[in-house]
Amino acid sequence: MTQHIAVLPGDGIGPEIIEQAVRVLTSLGEDFRIEEQPVGGAAYAASGHPLPPATLDLAKRADAVLFGSVGDWKYDSLERSLRPEQAILGLRKQLGLFANLRPAILYPELANASSLKPEVVAGLDIIIIRELTGDIYFGSPRGMRTAPDGQFAGEREGFDTMRYAESEIRRIAHVGFKTAQKRNRKLCSVDKSNVLETFQFWRDIMTEVGKEYPDVELSHMYVDNAAMQLVRAPKQFDVIVTGNLFGDILSDQASMLTGSIGMLPSASLNESGKGLYEPSHGSAPDIANQDIANPLATILSAAMMLRYSLDKAAQADRIEAAVKTVLGQGLRTADIFEAGTTKVGTTEMGNAVIKAL
Amino acid sequence: MTQHIAVLPGDGIGPEIIEQAVRVLTSLGEDFRIEEQPVGGAAYAASGHPLPPATLDLAKRADAVLFGSVGDWKYDSLERSLRPEQAILGLRKQLGLFANLRPAILYPELANASSLKPEVVAGLDIIIIRELTGDIYFGSPRGMRTAPDGQFAGEREGFDTMRYAESEIRRIAHVGFKTAQKRNRKLCSVDKSNVLETFQFWRDIMTEVGKEYPDVELSHMYVDNAAMQLVRAPKQFDVIVTGNLFGDILSDQASMLTGSIGMLPSASLNESGKGLYEPSHGSAPDIANQDIANPLATILSAAMMLRYSLDKAAQADRIEAAVKTVLGQGLRTADIFEAGTTKVGTTEMGNAVIKAL
Ligand SMILES: CC(C)[C@H](C(=O)O)[C@@H](O)C(=O)O
Ligand SMILES: CC(C)[C@H](C(=O)O)[C@@H](O)C(=O)O
Repeated sequence: MTQHIAVLPGDGIGPEIIEQAVRVLTSLGEDFRIEEQPVGGAAYAASGHPLPPATLDLAKRADAVLFGSVGDWKYDSLERSLRPEQAILGLRKQLGLFANLRPAILYPELANASSLKPEVVAGLDIIIIRELTGDIYFGSPRGMRTAPDGQFAGEREGFDTMRYAESEIRRIAHVGFKTAQKRNRKLCSVDKSNVLETFQFWRDIMTEVGKEYPDVELSHMYVDNAAMQLVRAPKQFDVIVTGNLFGDILSDQASMLTGSIGMLPSASLNESGKGLYEPSHGSAPDIANQDIANPLATILSAAMMLRYSLDKAAQADRIEAAVKTVLGQGLRTADIFEAGTTKVGTTEMGNAVIKAL
Repeated sequence: MTQHIAVLPGDGIGPEIIEQAVRVLTSLGEDFRIEEQPVGGAAYAASGHPLPPATLDLAKRADAVLFGSVGDWKYDSLERSLRPEQAILGLRKQLGLFANLRPAILYPELANASSLKPEVVAGLDIIIIRELTGDIYFGSPRGMRTAPDGQFAGEREGFDTMRYAESEIRRIAHVGFKTAQKRNRKLCSVDKSNVLETFQFWRDIMTEVGKEYPDVELSHMYVDNAAMQLVRAPKQFDVIVTGNLFGDILSDQASMLTGSIGMLPSASLNESGKGLYEPSHGSAPDIANQDIANPLATILSAAMMLRYSLDKAAQADRIEAAVKTVLGQGLRTADIFEAGTTKVGTTEMGNAVIKAL
């Protein structure tokens, strides 16, 4: 049966890294139908909206979405609703992609890339599960208003609403516990329950759902402490589950612990396992179109897609093994280059992975 | 003129580290009147409230407040309004302590304590300015409600309000720019303006205030990127200014970069320069009453108090020099101990600082 993959290259280095991932996918010899549409700034430039109907429609029809990255300084002065970032927020919301899985893995070959001491990060393998369709990202009301009361009554103020409903917390909790069951059975829920009502409720529901998973050790940690512990001793964690805003911050921090964010894929899943797959890094417009960007995070995102949404674990394994092979061969893009290895460009890296398949 | 210092030891290691700081203060030979009241769990245990009227009243009357730390697991099951943390939130709000100054400095003698590579953190000297009386910490409405609309209508949900009024942003912006003027004239404002209305407004006002400080280089960074950059290359920063919630997370992360959070003081100031001074670390109830806690962050907080609120910069210098001396003598509490140095307890460390004065 033909599987239908939506490919959304986006902005900055998006198109060139996506190109390599698509080449890898097509060289697997599977029956894929690959269809492409612009997204983000590129879509705005083409049709006046970062997430045009044709792009959203393709994403909805496809079995899975492979996403490059969005964002470019040139769109910074647009009003918020037209900026590239709105495309990814819209896709998450419209496709119901509530579970964002972000592994932070240190490849032994790249141990030196980390700014942390080798003994602190050697063998690091954690996964952050970020809730992706709730929290202050989508809560209403929000906007500008005249401060209604208190010390600043009458002044202009900006405001947003943080919120989580019970079933939203429950479903991400289940993803957290199930992920932990497949790993080392340790789940750390990160919140700020000592200050926020939203996250007191979060903690209560996490604890309740935890009773259904007696084989998983559940702990709770405040987000400020989590940010410290990720620096101090990241290997204490196995699976972290947290809300959208805290997850945004902590998952980026955790990626950077490895020093090689150019290697880290991510998956965003909905309730039926459909997903959007994208590299953890951003669009890096400063190095776009120079054939120097690292395509491996995107190639590994394609592997995650095969595993989680397209039921092709064996092909995912093949890609992951090929990536390990090219690292073993000493091939490195500029972001992970060090003395004694061979610097290659984006296309060459794609070629090498395909050859290693 | 007698200067009146309120001393609030609090919970966990609070009393023992405060004791050493008070000993240091009294040995300066200045005309201080030092008055003590319980706060946090200790106050709850004594009188049923974490911030009793006598404690708040003392804090208001005094010229400055020296604070230990609050929090202990034994109070975790109390309802939120009675928990120890409410004391510090209440003090901040009631005293109008809107500007939290948190230096993250790496002492050369303690370079090994960091989990980061020496070249990444050697010479680190940044300061995070966290707005402390606004944001989602104090916004209303907040609480539990029945979700009013959308996908989860009818369900229970927890919610909070993030908000900043114009003058709140302006006054912390001025603190940020003025601090940068006294240092390397680089101010990085951290926000999440790509998602939050509150922080789009924040960015707009920061930019506006920046025009009054042409000698300071203002930059803007998203909070997720800031969490990455603090790991990757923390020395790129000089002064960071941010909101209450992001500041909570980033200032703890930044402290931990040094590996010696037991060394880091903090100041929380109001518009007239009155301040509350406390160590950046927490109450560590697990090591309380064992005479092993590091009193240096509290002693250095007393030095900040002399400098910022009591107009005694020379005495502040004396204390800071004394701390450098004892580090130079190789004296270390357990948290910063390494082979080749001399392990001392809390009281011994206090003695050594007094001797070095
Ligand atoms: C681009 C931005 C809106 C987005 C977010 O905050 O979620 C990004 O930082 C991410 O993590 O994917
Ligand atoms: C104890 C807690 C309420 C407090 C905060 O979140 O502000 C603490 O983490 C801090 O940073 O002083």
